[in-house]
Amino acid sequence: MAKKEEMQGLTVKKEKDFSEWYSQIIQKAELAEHSSVSGCIVLRPNAFQVWEQIKQIFDKKIKKTGHKNAYFPMLIPEKLLEKEKEHIQGFSPEVAWVTQTGETKLNERLALRPTSESIMYESFSKWIRSHRDLPLLLNQWCNIVRWEFKHPKPFLRTREFLWQEGHTVHETKKEAWNETLNILKEYEDLMKNYLALPIISGMKTNAEKFAGADTTTAVETLMPDGKALQLGTSHFLGQNFSKAFEIKFLNEKSEEKFAWQTSWGISTRLIGAVIMMHGDDKGLVLPPKIAFNKIVIVPIIFEDSKTKIVKKAKELEKKLKKFNPLLDDREEYSAGWKFNEWELKGIPVRIEIGPKDMEKEAVMVVRRDTGEKKQVKIKELEKTLDRELEQMQKELYKKAHKFLDKNVAEAANSSDFQKAIKNGKMVHCFFCEDEKCEKKIKEETGATNRVIPFNQKESQGKCGYCESKAERKSFFAKSY
Amino acid sequence: MAKKEEMQGLTVKKEKDFSEWYSQIIQKAELAEHSSVSGCIVLRPNAFQVWEQIKQIFDKKIKKTGHKNAYFPMLIPEKLLEKEKEHIQGFSPEVAWVTQTGETKLNERLALRPTSESIMYESFSKWIRSHRDLPLLLNQWCNIVRWEFKHPKPFLRTREFLWQEGHTVHETKKEAWNETLNILKEYEDLMKNYLALPIISGMKTNAEKFAGADTTTAVETLMPDGKALQLGTSHFLGQNFSKAFEIKFLNEKSEEKFAWQTSWGISTRLIGAVIMMHGDDKGLVLPPKIAFNKIVIVPIIFEDSKTKIVKKAKELEKKLKKFNPLLDDREEYSAGWKFNEWELKGIPVRIEIGPKDMEKEAVMVVRRDTGEKKQVKIKELEKTLDRELEQMQKELYKKAHKFLDKNVAEAANSSDFQKAIKNGKMVHCFFCEDEKCEKKIKEETGATNRVIPFNQKESQGKCGYCESKAERKSFFAKSY
Repeated sequence: MAKKEEMQGLTVKKEKDFSEWYSQIIQKAELAEHSSVSGCIVLRPNAFQVWEQIKQIFDKKIKKTGHKNAYFPMLIPEKLLEKEKEHIQGFSPEVAWVTQTGETKLNERLALRPTSESIMYESFSKWIRSHRDLPLLLNQWCNIVRWEFKHPKPFLRTREFLWQEGHTVHETKKEAWNETLNILKEYEDLMKNYLALPIISGMKTNAEKFAGADTTTAVETLMPDGKALQLGTSHFLGQNFSKAFEIKFLNEKSEEKFAWQTSWGISTRLIGAVIMMHGDDKGLVLPPKIAFNKIVIVPIIFEDSKTKIVKKAKELEKKLKKFNPLLDDREEYSAGWKFNEWELKGIPVRIEIGPKDMEKEAVMVVRRDTGEKKQVKIKELEKTLDRELEQMQKELYKKAHKFLDKNVAEAANSSDFQKAIKNGKMVHCFFCEDEKCEKKIKEETGATNRVIPFNQKESQGKCGYCESKAERKSFFAKSY
Repeated sequence: MAKKEEMQGLTVKKEKDFSEWYSQIIQKAELAEHSSVSGCIVLRPNAFQVWEQIKQIFDKKIKKTGHKNAYFPMLIPEKLLEKEKEHIQGFSPEVAWVTQTGETKLNERLALRPTSESIMYESFSKWIRSHRDLPLLLNQWCNIVRWEFKHPKPFLRTREFLWQEGHTVHETKKEAWNETLNILKEYEDLMKNYLALPIISGMKTNAEKFAGADTTTAVETLMPDGKALQLGTSHFLGQNFSKAFEIKFLNEKSEEKFAWQTSWGISTRLIGAVIMMHGDDKGLVLPPKIAFNKIVIVPIIFEDSKTKIVKKAKELEKKLKKFNPLLDDREEYSAGWKFNEWELKGIPVRIEIGPKDMEKEAVMVVRRDTGEKKQVKIKELEKTLDRELEQMQKELYKKAHKFLDKNVAEAANSSDFQKAIKNGKMVHCFFCEDEKCEKKIKEETGATNRVIPFNQKESQGKCGYCESKAERKSFFAKSY
């Protein structure tokens, strides 16, 4: 058992070796595991639970605004996938193909969906006849396969992942554009107020947009290793797909028109973002709003008071039901071992109850993020927990935001720019929006344009790389 | 518009042409649609909503008993799938294989999961070391691909479907057997008390059991066309897989033992069962407990009282929020058209509100299953709805149970047996449990053994087919 205790915690500091820290936390907090198919991971319950929380939060949001869930086949015939030219060009190198069933060779290869535009829009074209059928607001929670050859990283880049893909169809350009932005706002809210992730948001350049979209908008953040991570995207598809898939409707004047569309998604990569941003040298730190078990109760067991203490702990478990408490009354582990275990697994608040606390009708409340410990009367416990959890949620965001602010650098010229990227910063500067300059930046620094924010105040400046005239600022960084 | 109204309803009676009725209800109630991949369907929101309700109900049940959700990769290397011999023999003719990614041929074929025993148990063997790691109680909600060549039927038999698969690991045989039966009981409760489906349940014969199981238990029902439908299965796997995948643990005496396992599942086929069992000549009938929108409010709009009536309808919508009401205040459709539409789509209760009702501070309440219509004071509405929905839930079950009872026949010999099956009945009779007799029954009548019920009272009789000595009764029927 001594050996097990030694093995229990992380053996490397987040600041010292970020990559090894990430591997250890994933293994030791039992979040994920590599499978025997390279690039595909097992989402273990501790991680899947976070995804279930995110699903619940976002599903509620979109249902409130009239979206409905559906499920479309995972297999897409090759011909169908090819209908929108830019789209297939973007995805074809990454498609996994089913070519046989049993011992029979198929006549046409079937793609595992890399995204569902083509299979969905084939149906949409049959369903939509009149303006009365619009808007169509659908969403699907499903698995996706993209056979990427970049280095896989659990959650952030895997060949199969889980996501949500929304697909909407509208009468007018304006409505579709509003939908694109409304969803972007919902994503912003999800990241900031639930995942406690500070974000940058805006539109993508042409070079970085989704294959087949008119405009891609995105929410991103910066990871502790200086790489940007795309958290969610909302695409304004214009009429590109409605023309390829013949999604037409009769308007009120009985004129036939092509519809306007959007698509948008977030994926299990969000779990990776949360681990990286909030985790510390003791393990995972879960923002309370996405932690299923918000507290763990650990009775401090001595031989003479065991029965009483465990009984009290069980009473507390019942009383605090709304926090989905874990009760760790295992006798074969020491209290210290349990503290380490639940810190490793990121439970937001620990409640310790020992004989001395019990005499005072009190417990010890310990916060995961700060380690702060205080004695709280049992009758005030629920209120205190509400407050502490809310406080923790806010402070995690604040801390992460401070990190982002500290790591965004300005740049007036290519030398500034290069230095900043080299030092693991994100660059925020005026950008000429010339594709050649964008390509040069990528070649010379490894950074790409992350987003061009909306509603910028200044409108005159010089490109932070080539120094030519520029009208809008952009964010640049290396990225996952 | 006249034309549209004519097209709206079902044009065939359930009793006259069951198969065409099923096709029409699926299309006209917008439940599903064939896709361009043969045997794969689109689950449209009206059907997916039912699946979401079932998921929510069952997920809550299993979480209460300590099960946790996880997600394992969809792709399984061929070698891994082959580890348990009976298992692969059962599934290999139906496996869809990925052989290429992009333009690259893979070294080893990857199966789309036909079920996840092999990929999960590879991980289990790494996670489980000690009796302290047991029981392991996992579940996964996911998509499954089985390339069957029988005639596909929406929901009941499709090449891709959605399901839940539970997989548990235990120290002792007894614990695993108890888990098998506990889950069977949860399935029974789900079918009877939520889906309003009458059931038979028990164990499968060797010929009918799951490939790789020691014992398969199942819950089944009888469809209106005289075919049995398997609704859910719970398998006692014994040590078959733990030996093939080396799932071993050290017990309290530090002896190495192979673990005992179970697996169990229900799928989107349940949606088909509900449609078939409860639907009528007007369309879908949804049991209230699995209907997301339990009521629809239809204001009866006349030009002079329009504003008032719609305002009142909106007030009701707010007041009745807990029933997730639909409000149909579209002006371009007549009240009659709307009634047909929501009957077609199976909304359990319709509330009509017209000027005369309003004068009396009342509404008309119409039940979908009986067509019964009554005036109810608004102040009593919530209570009345609670009662009517509960009543409807019970009566649907009763009605379906009557149907089952009426269609179960006894048999004392092969001639009785053959006649009953020919007449679309399910046979309940003593069975010798001889594999040869079972095979003969299948060849001569097309019927298979559905289940051997547990806890039978009588224990002596003669086989209802071959007339030799028998100890237990069985159910036989043709099946989907």
